[in-house]
Amino acid sequence: MLVRPIITLLTDFGTSDAYVGQMKGAILKQAPECQLVDITHEIPPQDVALAARMLASTWNHFPSGTVHLAVVDPGVGTQRDIVAAHVDGHYFVAPNNGLLGGIVREQSSTGGTGCQNVRVDCDGLLSSRLSNSPSSNTFHGRDIMGPAAGMLAVGIPLEQLGEPFTKQVVELPSPVVRVDPRRVLTEVVAIDHFGNCSLATSAEFERWLATRRQVRARLRGSDESIPIEVCRTYGQQPIGTSVLLVGSQGDLEIAVVNGSAAQKLALTLGDSVEIVE
Amino acid sequence: MLVRPIITLLTDFGTSDAYVGQMKGAILKQAPECQLVDITHEIPPQDVALAARMLASTWNHFPSGTVHLAVVDPGVGTQRDIVAAHVDGHYFVAPNNGLLGGIVREQSSTGGTGCQNVRVDCDGLLSSRLSNSPSSNTFHGRDIMGPAAGMLAVGIPLEQLGEPFTKQVVELPSPVVRVDPRRVLTEVVAIDHFGNCSLATSAEFERWLATRRQVRARLRGSDESIPIEVCRTYGQQPIGTSVLLVGSQGDLEIAVVNGSAAQKLALTLGDSVEIVE
Amino acid sequence: MLVRPIITLLTDFGTSDAYVGQMKGAILKQAPECQLVDITHEIPPQDVALAARMLASTWNHFPSGTVHLAVVDPGVGTQRDIVAAHVDGHYFVAPNNGLLGGIVREQSSTGGTGCQNVRVDCDGLLSSRLSNSPSSNTFHGRDIMGPAAGMLAVGIPLEQLGEPFTKQVVELPSPVVRVDPRRVLTEVVAIDHFGNCSLATSAEFERWLATRRQVRARLRGSDESIPIEVCRTYGQQPIGTSVLLVGSQGDLEIAVVNGSAAQKLALTLGDSVEIVE
Repeated sequence: MLVRPIITLLTDFGTSDAYVGQMKGAILKQAPECQLVDITHEIPPQDVALAARMLASTWNHFPSGTVHLAVVDPGVGTQRDIVAAHVDGHYFVAPNNGLLGGIVREQSSTGGTGCQNVRVDCDGLLSSRLSNSPSSNTFHGRDIMGPAAGMLAVGIPLEQLGEPFTKQVVELPSPVVRVDPRRVLTEVVAIDHFGNCSLATSAEFERWLATRRQVRARLRGSDESIPIEVCRTYGQQPIGTSVLLVGSQGDLEIAVVNGSAAQKLALTLGDSVEIVE
Repeated sequence: MLVRPIITLLTDFGTSDAYVGQMKGAILKQAPECQLVDITHEIPPQDVALAARMLASTWNHFPSGTVHLAVVDPGVGTQRDIVAAHVDGHYFVAPNNGLLGGIVREQSSTGGTGCQNVRVDCDGLLSSRLSNSPSSNTFHGRDIMGPAAGMLAVGIPLEQLGEPFTKQVVELPSPVVRVDPRRVLTEVVAIDHFGNCSLATSAEFERWLATRRQVRARLRGSDESIPIEVCRTYGQQPIGTSVLLVGSQGDLEIAVVNGSAAQKLALTLGDSVEIVE
Repeated sequence: MLVRPIITLLTDFGTSDAYVGQMKGAILKQAPECQLVDITHEIPPQDVALAARMLASTWNHFPSGTVHLAVVDPGVGTQRDIVAAHVDGHYFVAPNNGLLGGIVREQSSTGGTGCQNVRVDCDGLLSSRLSNSPSSNTFHGRDIMGPAAGMLAVGIPLEQLGEPFTKQVVELPSPVVRVDPRRVLTEVVAIDHFGNCSLATSAEFERWLATRRQVRARLRGSDESIPIEVCRTYGQQPIGTSVLLVGSQGDLEIAVVNGSAAQKLALTLGDSVEIVE
């Protein structure tokens, strides 16, 4: 165990209200020594798919033993379950709405040791340790999941948080990539702060691209195509060039050197991208 | 005392300048081991009332012993006082402009043990400990209040920060709720990141609502009224329904399930809301 | 050395992606006990000059021994060097593109003891300690500079991160101030969250202003001039007054009492400002 356990936070709470602060207060009541790290709180409201994607590409950049708390929770107060999971030395706490799907899928595909999951039991240990503050009906991040994450951080065993979770961990569908000999059909799955546009990516797509230096792209089903340089890093091409490269999140991305691909190419989330020779 | 004392920060500094960072640096010079937690820095510039409201609903989600530093300070550099207070096991540092009014009011109304207050004395202990960095005239958050919070965090007694504060702690007026047998007249007092609209709330208003399942609301003095479902949590009603429920901050709020009430109902801060049977 | 070493972060990553979080994870793998402090992540993409300016005005508000990590890195993946520096008891890690220029210039002008610099050697100690995670080509903040900062924080000597850096530390040109007996020609070099407009400042400009109580300003080469009160703090003048004072960052700034100078006077970055008697 870490001397100062780390807890990461990923939510759609925004940063202009006191919600993140209150959730951190509730965590610190359980784990006053922990190290809190914000992943982001700017997930668009209720966008579970984007948060799941971000969590899957981020958790293993942290030390083993880290607790990852993800709260994008449109079903708060309904019968959806809250799950705590132990995967590959890391802990996760989230509603079972797809947030943990990417982690689970990755585990199976890489032959990992699998997940140990419990359904966080609001009437068990958790409530006995939270006796003085009744749970709200609309903010389980602060009132249930935050405290659960804090308890894991101080070493309370997973199995004390609830019964083994026997239902399915929800997995959201992955975006599709179709690779043909002379073209690849994919789509924009994420756009970052710099305007870099991540594409739905597969090993087959990466192999297809490996032997090519320049391709053309048809955006949003357009008849016209634009030239795109295949390269290894932004700085290899002149400023303003459209490039295609493996980005830092492991996906193929379309970028514009020192500029915004989203702006220059008018790309938005979900746009179709056809890469042709 | 906590091993790693916690200091919360609530300001109108925004996050695009170095102001929050510099204030944290000044705190860490006094209390290098402390745990810093941002409540928010996105209070609209000079909006003391909103910050006071947020502080009052947030402080007791933190462990006893926490130091709460609130800096929304349009009077910086004038004769307004800086107050450090000890309330119910928590510490507060803020200019005396209304920021602490909600805490003080809550204490009196709940029969709390009251506040111990000092006027932070910029020429006393504080300045002797800050000898190498002269105070600016425009940034007392970094140069006076931050260091004072740091000193409290490492256990320096409140009374060493200055003389007992004998003036009145400024309290801002509360918004009014008028409850009649068949209608309640209230107003929008806060709008959060999700577009949920908090209403001025009173115990009488909550009792009035307790026996009702559906009400109608007249917004901004309109002649027309819209139906609103009274419920316990967002997920109980279909997506897009307008609901009225006790929100996570303890106030009654108008929300739209998985949507933005502010947007759908065109509500803005201060709008009148008449709830009728 | 601090018990909990402090690492500050200054980037153009924004806060809506997982980039800051991933970089913090990479730091915590090296220095799990460290205290992470965000300066800002909202530097406009690729604006090295603004980040350099902010770093120069912020670092010495932190305790001695702090590690400052600055990543605004349009040249990532090209031949630009990464530098780690030891200056006046503080450590810095940044690409050599101007980010450290302000620190170096300040050191020479104040007769400081100078900098000790190394070129961070991605194939030396660093890579041997990062064996399990190959470096990306597009995110050296997470894959090289973050880990280097973490190593410095836990006490690994600077010289173990690479060879002495023998090239020039890049310094960006300073904005010019021209002081004549009856007028000063300067420009807007920064605009903060409150709309306060920092001006290019010099000791000569400050002396020129010291004896004056009211001046006039011609903005953007306009023929008309507006009156500006010279004062010591915002609160000394009525709300809405345009004032000129020494701001909290040590520069002269034009402000509007309890308002936004940028908005009221339509000032933007780089606008010329002529101060006349």
